[in-house]
Amino acid sequence: MSAFDILFRPGHEIAADVRARRVSAREVTEAALDAIEALDGKLNAFTDVTAERAIEEANRVDAAVIGGTAPPLAGVPYAVKNLFDIEGVVTRAGSKINRENPPAAADASLVTRMQKAGAVLIGGVNMGEYAYDFTGENVHDGASLNPHDPARMSGGSSGGSGTAVASGMVALSLGSDTNGSIRVPSSFCGLYGLKPTFGRLSRARTFPFVASLDHLGPIARSPRDLAMAFDALQFPDPDDRHQLTRRSLDAERVLRTGIDGLRIAVAGDYFRSQAGNEALAAVDHVAKALGADREVDLPEVHRARAAAYVITTSESSALHLPRLQSRARDYDPDTRDRFLSGAMVPAAWYVAAQRFRSWFRAEMERLFETVDVILAPSTPFPALLSGTKEVELAGNRVPARPNIGIFAQPISFIGLPVVAVPVWPAGTHLPIGVQVIAPAWREDIALRVAEALHQAGTTAAPVAPIRLQGS
Amino acid sequence: MSAFDILFRPGHEIAADVRARRVSAREVTEAALDAIEALDGKLNAFTDVTAERAIEEANRVDAAVIGGTAPPLAGVPYAVKNLFDIEGVVTRAGSKINRENPPAAADASLVTRMQKAGAVLIGGVNMGEYAYDFTGENVHDGASLNPHDPARMSGGSSGGSGTAVASGMVALSLGSDTNGSIRVPSSFCGLYGLKPTFGRLSRARTFPFVASLDHLGPIARSPRDLAMAFDALQFPDPDDRHQLTRRSLDAERVLRTGIDGLRIAVAGDYFRSQAGNEALAAVDHVAKALGADREVDLPEVHRARAAAYVITTSESSALHLPRLQSRARDYDPDTRDRFLSGAMVPAAWYVAAQRFRSWFRAEMERLFETVDVILAPSTPFPALLSGTKEVELAGNRVPARPNIGIFAQPISFIGLPVVAVPVWPAGTHLPIGVQVIAPAWREDIALRVAEALHQAGTTAAPVAPIRLQGS
Repeated sequence: MSAFDILFRPGHEIAADVRARRVSAREVTEAALDAIEALDGKLNAFTDVTAERAIEEANRVDAAVIGGTAPPLAGVPYAVKNLFDIEGVVTRAGSKINRENPPAAADASLVTRMQKAGAVLIGGVNMGEYAYDFTGENVHDGASLNPHDPARMSGGSSGGSGTAVASGMVALSLGSDTNGSIRVPSSFCGLYGLKPTFGRLSRARTFPFVASLDHLGPIARSPRDLAMAFDALQFPDPDDRHQLTRRSLDAERVLRTGIDGLRIAVAGDYFRSQAGNEALAAVDHVAKALGADREVDLPEVHRARAAAYVITTSESSALHLPRLQSRARDYDPDTRDRFLSGAMVPAAWYVAAQRFRSWFRAEMERLFETVDVILAPSTPFPALLSGTKEVELAGNRVPARPNIGIFAQPISFIGLPVVAVPVWPAGTHLPIGVQVIAPAWREDIALRVAEALHQAGTTAAPVAPIRLQGS
Repeated sequence: MSAFDILFRPGHEIAADVRARRVSAREVTEAALDAIEALDGKLNAFTDVTAERAIEEANRVDAAVIGGTAPPLAGVPYAVKNLFDIEGVVTRAGSKINRENPPAAADASLVTRMQKAGAVLIGGVNMGEYAYDFTGENVHDGASLNPHDPARMSGGSSGGSGTAVASGMVALSLGSDTNGSIRVPSSFCGLYGLKPTFGRLSRARTFPFVASLDHLGPIARSPRDLAMAFDALQFPDPDDRHQLTRRSLDAERVLRTGIDGLRIAVAGDYFRSQAGNEALAAVDHVAKALGADREVDLPEVHRARAAAYVITTSESSALHLPRLQSRARDYDPDTRDRFLSGAMVPAAWYVAAQRFRSWFRAEMERLFETVDVILAPSTPFPALLSGTKEVELAGNRVPARPNIGIFAQPISFIGLPVVAVPVWPAGTHLPIGVQVIAPAWREDIALRVAEALHQAGTTAAPVAPIRLQGS
């Protein structure tokens, strides 16, 4: 098989081939390393390639397969946003400052879980500085580019995680999502992304952004890959005091359940009025495929977005304050300005935002008594051209960067699980994502809907049309 | 019996006499109303005397006693801080602004519970404006005075609750304690006060101060009265979303358990170094009576006090912000200044304070693995002369008002239960309190220690030597 044949399929197919010994984990790994060699000079996804470790992990997987104990993600190549600790690698979290730290002494808990499930770590990938970003740009490492159109943003802050999967260099990646950082690159890069319920997956040994909003999760080219990764990643971790559940879902199994009887509605008002044409078309396309004709208005959702902003800037600035005081000049100027302004937000605003959050959570719980799934665009528009500073939203010129996340922020604000699914509206070469939003702890519902859409061909995550050099 | 004979005893003795029909609830109530008539013009505890309701409640109690269903607190006269809703009375919360509100439509949950237990509500009592106070002074209603020396502060913010019980006008009162507002007047007025574990008692239909710090609890002249009131007050209340437990202790029963085997230690360092002579003598007196010779240092306790301050001013300013913007001139000038400065605290400080709080709680839990009870002064000194603006603490001149609470604040910061016990150091006419601090949810331990001290005569809460006019 060529590197193309080996790599450019969903992870679950790669794992099936490895388990059936149609290809070895070592061959897959070498194909991934070749693909990086060929493509990453252009796309800039990887900040750290862990080739030696990857070969070792692949060899161990192959030995297990030969020994008859093939793990579920056998040989699936994956990458992690560089805020995950990788033993022996410096966890830069997209910053200049953190790369002065010593190398991590141990893997992040979720990396250990992926290894246990047979996946092969190919390396750490690019991200917006300290995750405070929606573009995928990074002043220190350069932007990770969009494989579907390298003149465009990958989306952020898990930009490299999007670029690496959409280009086919790896089959899976792990990212983090505080206000949309998994869903935005999934939307811009045409991928499936899972932001689990807040408190579901361990955050041990990852660099934090906003304690009360940070989520970790996978990005992939199929819902099944998300489900398999999610099954690998769920476990009660004594090292993470923010984890809110000890229970696990059997995500891969529930994919087969179908979606009969699910009450599916489209988010109206706030979303409708600010979505661009592609976003509207994408949601309508998905809604039609699902037979969803009901529209629901989320209560005071513009305030939810504002409150998420206040909490984000307050908590992250509290975290960064000592560094801001001693190292201000070593920050990305854009990030620095946001942290500095956050350091001056009055506590009374933060307290009011938290109080509103309790109210909004209770109201959304009530809404979910009448509906099982809510559909909303992941972003108001497809990937912007790199460097775009302003966009038009609902007839107003507004700053581009913060407004990329207006549809993602209100949902993560109360920790609801979301699967972002990729749609390719007619007449454009660019994908755009739709959020499939479920009640808390019901990732299974969102994954079932995503799988049904994928099976029906309503959504798809093809590898970007960038060919391996020489292939 | 004279009014003196009827009233000037602990509540449990009054209830026993009513139940045994040696005196009627009606006679007790009339004695309390007479005492208010005679004394309150001088002491200024009551803002609302609910005489008509009191007579009705007393009559119902007497009917129940005659009918053979005598409730536990039969005929015990009590008052509530005027932030508790009393049906038909305006809940002023010590403010000028709130007294423009309509009368409360229903009783606070805890008032309903007291009524159910047979206690008779005599009225609402004075407090520091919006509970942001340690002195018992109030610019709108005047100060509630200390019955042991009317030239001195009652302590605050539950000042009227202290004055009313220490003068014998009532046997029991309910107050609130956010940073010390039950323990400070208990200390200054020579009373027993119970600040239960945070989240234990319902706060429904009381005016809030700091959502994450407010506690309600009783003040009385014996530990048994505290226990009986606590038993009456504990219940799962669907009207209070801040309640953290549905379980109750049987407090009166456990009083008989004694204190054998309890590991009791004295709080050192921060407390020792800032306590005045009377506070040091009081703690030593209690420690000696309990055979406690171990000293423990609370971890970073000065930071716990600072963090409690940041959270107090941030949350309360968030609550008051709209009122501050429209009605600033109608606030007590001292309170207004604190709320205004609180409105400018940066959110980053608040977030850091909350983060520290989690750490401090975990450290204190570890400390309580090696000790069952910690003793500390309730206040650094006995009641100050009214109007005192500065005091000397550890050799420094510091503002009086905020420093009254330095020993109380770090404990309520993490919601630990405390019984404040009154000590009368030799050579002074003024009492001073000692905090008996127990682990979370273990009010029973603190009450047992208080009862042992009371039985041994180590602590006592005599009625102040102010005689009823004409008796």
